[in-house]
Amino acid sequence: MSSGALPGFRDFYPDELARRAHIFQAWRAVARRYAFVEYDGPPLEPLDLYTRKSGDEIVGQLYNFVDKGGREVALRPEMTPTFARMVGARANALRKPVRWFSTPQLFRYERAQRGRLREHYQLNVDIVGEASEVADAELVAVAVDIMRELGLTSADVRARVSDRRLLSGVLQALGVTEAQVPAVYAVVDKLARQPREVSAEKLAAAGLSAATVEEVLTLASGTTLETLRARFGAHPAAAESIERFGRYLEHCAALGIGDWVDLDLSIVRGLAYYTGIVFEFFDAKGELRAICGGGRYDTLLKALGGTDLPALGFGMGDVVLGELLQDRGLFPTTIGTTADLYLIAGHWAVGRPYAEALQLVSALRRAGFQVDHGLNAERFLSQATRNQVDGAKKAGAAAVFGVREDGEVEVTAILGKMKDAPTHTMSLAAILAGEPSTMQALRDWLRAQRDSISNSHG
Amino acid sequence: MSSGALPGFRDFYPDELARRAHIFQAWRAVARRYAFVEYDGPPLEPLDLYTRKSGDEIVGQLYNFVDKGGREVALRPEMTPTFARMVGARANALRKPVRWFSTPQLFRYERAQRGRLREHYQLNVDIVGEASEVADAELVAVAVDIMRELGLTSADVRARVSDRRLLSGVLQALGVTEAQVPAVYAVVDKLARQPREVSAEKLAAAGLSAATVEEVLTLASGTTLETLRARFGAHPAAAESIERFGRYLEHCAALGIGDWVDLDLSIVRGLAYYTGIVFEFFDAKGELRAICGGGRYDTLLKALGGTDLPALGFGMGDVVLGELLQDRGLFPTTIGTTADLYLIAGHWAVGRPYAEALQLVSALRRAGFQVDHGLNAERFLSQATRNQVDGAKKAGAAAVFGVREDGEVEVTAILGKMKDAPTHTMSLAAILAGEPSTMQALRDWLRAQRDSISNSHG
Repeated sequence: MSSGALPGFRDFYPDELARRAHIFQAWRAVARRYAFVEYDGPPLEPLDLYTRKSGDEIVGQLYNFVDKGGREVALRPEMTPTFARMVGARANALRKPVRWFSTPQLFRYERAQRGRLREHYQLNVDIVGEASEVADAELVAVAVDIMRELGLTSADVRARVSDRRLLSGVLQALGVTEAQVPAVYAVVDKLARQPREVSAEKLAAAGLSAATVEEVLTLASGTTLETLRARFGAHPAAAESIERFGRYLEHCAALGIGDWVDLDLSIVRGLAYYTGIVFEFFDAKGELRAICGGGRYDTLLKALGGTDLPALGFGMGDVVLGELLQDRGLFPTTIGTTADLYLIAGHWAVGRPYAEALQLVSALRRAGFQVDHGLNAERFLSQATRNQVDGAKKAGAAAVFGVREDGEVEVTAILGKMKDAPTHTMSLAAILAGEPSTMQALRDWLRAQRDSISNSHG
Repeated sequence: MSSGALPGFRDFYPDELARRAHIFQAWRAVARRYAFVEYDGPPLEPLDLYTRKSGDEIVGQLYNFVDKGGREVALRPEMTPTFARMVGARANALRKPVRWFSTPQLFRYERAQRGRLREHYQLNVDIVGEASEVADAELVAVAVDIMRELGLTSADVRARVSDRRLLSGVLQALGVTEAQVPAVYAVVDKLARQPREVSAEKLAAAGLSAATVEEVLTLASGTTLETLRARFGAHPAAAESIERFGRYLEHCAALGIGDWVDLDLSIVRGLAYYTGIVFEFFDAKGELRAICGGGRYDTLLKALGGTDLPALGFGMGDVVLGELLQDRGLFPTTIGTTADLYLIAGHWAVGRPYAEALQLVSALRRAGFQVDHGLNAERFLSQATRNQVDGAKKAGAAAVFGVREDGEVEVTAILGKMKDAPTHTMSLAAILAGEPSTMQALRDWLRAQRDSISNSHG
């Protein structure tokens, strides 16, 4: 038997799945608070859905093949083409603005490198049909609130924001010609990843004067809107973009995310398809790759042969985000606990029927508790209590329960290392009858045990 | 642009995704109450993971190809081989019994037929390391409680249960030889799908006497444990299996699912790999294919080259289950609502700053509400209230809110067709301050509006 997954693919054992689920839970909860609705498409799509957007060179990075019906197909490397296809197919019927999100698994055949994955999950959040910069502020606010939902602060993560139109206006005001702009974008895009001298050489090679090279490099390395307004606010090429960006920052502040956002003209997001405000999130220490990225792509839907509507969106992967949460100790301590309650024999061994034990398990589950038990009547009735409690601890239960000699049900917390383990007592008859107050008391007691543990950890 | 998904693949638009999520939610909630923990594996696996279990003939039904590294790979057609691989890799470290579940998307290249899908989602629930029939009862109870969680009753769905060992013992007691058993299994497996005469002919061809043919057909068409006990309870070949099945039914009764379970010796689950109690769920009207199926496979993990442990599990797909829920009107009426609250201008148009509107939206989201708004300041401040309310209705919001002339915030329900729409009033300052009692009152009021709507629907 193959002992492992394919290179670059992850197995999600329960603890790893719980971490993935924690991230998904934050993605979904926040996207829903922002009134986004979830959609999904197939992980396998026609190959031309991707070559149409990215050209034939993308094929080298795809899991593509010919299916048994002779169709050229590929595992999805990104969600935007599927999103564009689905929106395009119902463009007239969908109410605008469209607010959709999805959490697809995506696949790329990357050259094998240590720790380099060939699949990841990516939250996709998109808005279609609204050109206003309020939509841009709303979009970045979704990403910020996901950070908050996961326990991250503006000291952990920074949102670096730019605007293609703003950069282009500033460049024009500096005398950069339209023909030179693509070369300048390419240099700016790589600014953080190559020495300043190399960037300067490339800008000079593109035909910029020494003074303009210096100005471009200084502005792209860090500036503020005030600086830009003072310098270019009256210039016809830049004035409108500066005012728009100012309104955008005001909307961000009103949405409560002002302290997360930095203007950073070096954020270009590659050379293709973005048309307006763009952003990337990075850990503040600068140790990891980008946490998420996105922006406005007003012409893409039409270019893909679909509907002519303004649009904007971002993608946020699970891998870098997971590394950051792990690094900051922000995954919940409850990962690894698998049940609220684990049944031990107690006094069933001395005459009570085993069926009653199963009835008790069933009644507690009906009330919503996660209940584990040993699945073997003989072992249950013969094994020493101590061994059963050990089994419950290994199973990751929060508490054990059994029946006492007097017929009452006793619950004992087994979380952490408690000197005198707290207990809680209930009437067997009340549980079997599903008595709401009995169940609520147990729920409250269990929550109190968990809280006391997580406080002692914190 | 391709206008659709590949044949046999589904796009999940938001309403369809909401139905899928409703099913997933039930799967996960119930599996967790039974202390199962979620895992997942890659959707792409080495091809030999599947041929090793099912032989080379399975390849004709797979999405298989050679990847760019020269590896023979396939999209997963089922989860059990991945489950066996993952359990096998950590067999010693995992505490037993293992209780795992997963909700993978699975892929088969079926011949194209109308409505025949090439992908579906399937809940997989498995237990490893317990031979007792308590585990078999626990397993079928998970599937029954999922039916209940989704609003189905024992009048809608029947669990048909058999035991390979019981059938084999009864056949032996009837004088069927070991060499004849596979042919008899094959006939019994198809009993419901072929005329009785054809089954009788095939049994006769296998060498059974006319009297034995009659007995086999009668027993497999419907019997009870009491009948079997009276007839075969003293026969050494059948006695143990009859007693075991009796204990199994007692455990089912104690777990509260006795009225869902019918003994049905015709349930064989194909010819491969099952070794003990097997079951399939069907809609009681008999209109649909099986809802789920599974059973005990004590020798499979070892046969796959892994660990020698008893095991049992079931799979439940999303397609037949979805058809049944749709047919019975059991999908929630909240599907299609996308937000709790939708912001309308109210008196912001007459002098209040737009930033305050965004602050209000942000404060309500921080308190957990799903809040939608129009994402355009100019339109917000100029559009007539009536048009904004229409927009909110189209957006699927439960209520609209805006600020009144006196500065209070007023919420108005827009669900259903209410003659005099109920309203709720709050202090703007209290919302901006995140006042818990204000938020709780709004939460309660919204719940009351939704309850009154779903009651009027029911």
